[in-house]
Amino acid sequence: MEMARIGPGVAGGNNRQTLTDADAEGRALFQSWCEAAGCTMGLDALGNMFAQRDGTDPDALPVYVGSHLDTQPTGGKYDGVLGVLGGLEVVRTLNDLGVKTRHPIVVTNWTNEEGTRFAPAMLASGVFAGVHEQDWAEAREDAEGKRFGEELDRIGWRGDEPVGARKMHAFFELHIEQGPILEAEGKDIGVVTHGQGLWWLQVTLTGKDAHTGSTPMEMRVNAGLGMARITEAVHRIAMDHLPDAVGAVGQANVYPNSRNVIPGKAVFTVDFRSPDLDKLNSMRARLEDEAAVIAKDLGLGIEIEPVGHFDPVTFDPGCVGAVRDAAERLGYSHRDIVSGAGHDACWINQVAPTAMVMCPCVDGLSHNEAEEISKDWATAGADVLMHAVVETAEI
Amino acid sequence: MEMARIGPGVAGGNNRQTLTDADAEGRALFQSWCEAAGCTMGLDALGNMFAQRDGTDPDALPVYVGSHLDTQPTGGKYDGVLGVLGGLEVVRTLNDLGVKTRHPIVVTNWTNEEGTRFAPAMLASGVFAGVHEQDWAEAREDAEGKRFGEELDRIGWRGDEPVGARKMHAFFELHIEQGPILEAEGKDIGVVTHGQGLWWLQVTLTGKDAHTGSTPMEMRVNAGLGMARITEAVHRIAMDHLPDAVGAVGQANVYPNSRNVIPGKAVFTVDFRSPDLDKLNSMRARLEDEAAVIAKDLGLGIEIEPVGHFDPVTFDPGCVGAVRDAAERLGYSHRDIVSGAGHDACWINQVAPTAMVMCPCVDGLSHNEAEEISKDWATAGADVLMHAVVETAEI
Ligand SMILES: NC(=O)NCCC(=O)O
Ligand SMILES: NC(=O)NCCC(=O)O
Repeated sequence: MEMARIGPGVAGGNNRQTLTDADAEGRALFQSWCEAAGCTMGLDALGNMFAQRDGTDPDALPVYVGSHLDTQPTGGKYDGVLGVLGGLEVVRTLNDLGVKTRHPIVVTNWTNEEGTRFAPAMLASGVFAGVHEQDWAEAREDAEGKRFGEELDRIGWRGDEPVGARKMHAFFELHIEQGPILEAEGKDIGVVTHGQGLWWLQVTLTGKDAHTGSTPMEMRVNAGLGMARITEAVHRIAMDHLPDAVGAVGQANVYPNSRNVIPGKAVFTVDFRSPDLDKLNSMRARLEDEAAVIAKDLGLGIEIEPVGHFDPVTFDPGCVGAVRDAAERLGYSHRDIVSGAGHDACWINQVAPTAMVMCPCVDGLSHNEAEEISKDWATAGADVLMHAVVETAEI
Repeated sequence: MEMARIGPGVAGGNNRQTLTDADAEGRALFQSWCEAAGCTMGLDALGNMFAQRDGTDPDALPVYVGSHLDTQPTGGKYDGVLGVLGGLEVVRTLNDLGVKTRHPIVVTNWTNEEGTRFAPAMLASGVFAGVHEQDWAEAREDAEGKRFGEELDRIGWRGDEPVGARKMHAFFELHIEQGPILEAEGKDIGVVTHGQGLWWLQVTLTGKDAHTGSTPMEMRVNAGLGMARITEAVHRIAMDHLPDAVGAVGQANVYPNSRNVIPGKAVFTVDFRSPDLDKLNSMRARLEDEAAVIAKDLGLGIEIEPVGHFDPVTFDPGCVGAVRDAAERLGYSHRDIVSGAGHDACWINQVAPTAMVMCPCVDGLSHNEAEEISKDWATAGADVLMHAVVETAEI
């Protein structure tokens, strides 16, 4: 794939993190492809891209289709990209077939879906859907203290359109499952009925830097040990909420991170998810309680900041039906599925009828450079996407 | 202090890590001071500095006195520096008093004592003492993959003298305790009879990067969770070996260190110490066993590499006696003490009669920018050092 050449990873995948030079390069390539397919590009003030293929009815709202082009620091070639280029393939195919739709079709690239560089994830689609304030989004900082808004200006991809001004007839997103279920059950297509809810917490523990050799055990205020205990607690709490619950610590940093210094500070992130709102909130509450006890036992200061959240999502029955019908009509094996990951579709669902199409990925592996899909899976996903979109956009 | 202006820290201490530009600047300042005090500077092939004040007997071996000028990334102003500048004060005082000694006195700055940037600690004094090969030392790499030998050349402080060629009549090192005992007992001086032994281990766990949301709990191979469990094991093992045992994890890194990626790799360091060789080796052995079980349970690959080691040290009874006698004669309160930290003196002890003088530090705090000592403590330490050195160098 051309796109995967931009922001190459170190092991065959991609590092095209949001608002980096590689992101800018990827956007330019996508724009050139859209223009070659006869689309007009719109760009909003958070860099969300909207490539429009006109419809036949000037009063009909567009059907939107897309995902994101940004990747994890060690990401795969398909997470997000499949959904954007899948949308472009719908346009190209309609062009090739000379088919006109009543509603326009708009292929979309949402800014900062991954949320690794700037938390939270799905940031710009969240502003579009009215979940976050634009100013707040622009003030998000990466690990080096660079702000989202400044980085957007730096790469030159801020547009004039007010964010969220567009009205949608519907939104469809094709995405790899990023989990093992479809492959294990031999299904070509996941009809996404729901999305898991999420809590992202950032924990800061404050102890006391001290010498690892000459500080007696009972005098230590070891923030790294606190991080270890809370990491174990996150795991245990998720296990106690099975089924339909997951939890892990993704970022873990101790300071000053020196061999012979007891860590005086630890900063780390917690990710809890469940399709069940009660479980989701219960996991967060239990962690807050247990972490406070762990910190107290060790004499540590503790601060827990929520840095990302969404409730479990129920997608629009009409759009979900269009996806299921398309899979059925085209003869692909399919099953209803809950999305384990967050997606731009989860936010857009708040402002427009929305659904998602999923296709399997090898070993359920994602957020890993080794992420892989088969050509057949990609074809089935794009095929179902096209039929659901065209059905909704009306010929 | 002039020296503390070089490589300032972020909180009142110092970041003058070995073989950085700040290290070079500190060396130049030290050299200018030594030359102003009438000394001749020698420099060996690992950057160890030797400022000689001649004695009256051309056949008498010099008495060496010194420590190190490098610091932790967030280090204090006294760890190491007190011992180097304390040695220089001995020379200046003898100059002021117009006193000649039979043996020359050589003030020494050993390269890379801290061991944070390049493990192990006390690297160049270790080569001097014949513990390490020089080539091996030069091939040590920092976290960015820069080699010790290349960085030494880069800062321009490689000398012509073969490392370890010098013969010593004795070696004395003044150092802050870096622990709480002297202050708690209200003693001015610690007469260091022994040093703790140490094992530094570097652990690498290999799991599988995967999505935190869509990867079911039972499919995870979470290297960060393994790091957490082994961090707890290090703590428990040290507690089980009390008294006279300590253990902690100082460096802790997970990869890719992203909020929504289950860590596929973790690299971290373990520091175990004891004045008792059996306990020291027992802690290492137990950790290797327990870590293997933890890794197996989680399906992780594990590699444990020893990156630093020394056996417990017994200092030279004659030199220790000279320190104890000086403290007694000068009327300072004192006690025998075991050094909790490693010091260049621990290696030099293998090739020359060696002893250490310790003075208290506030709250026993070291490897922390807030490290502090009182003027009285510094004076007492320097006073005892001078008398022990002059006694040994003979007037
Ligand atoms: N699909 C995806 O990986 N989105 C990133 C946000 C999340 O972690 O769910
Ligand atoms: N004195 C001192 O802090 N030396 C560094 C080596 C060690 O960690 O003991």
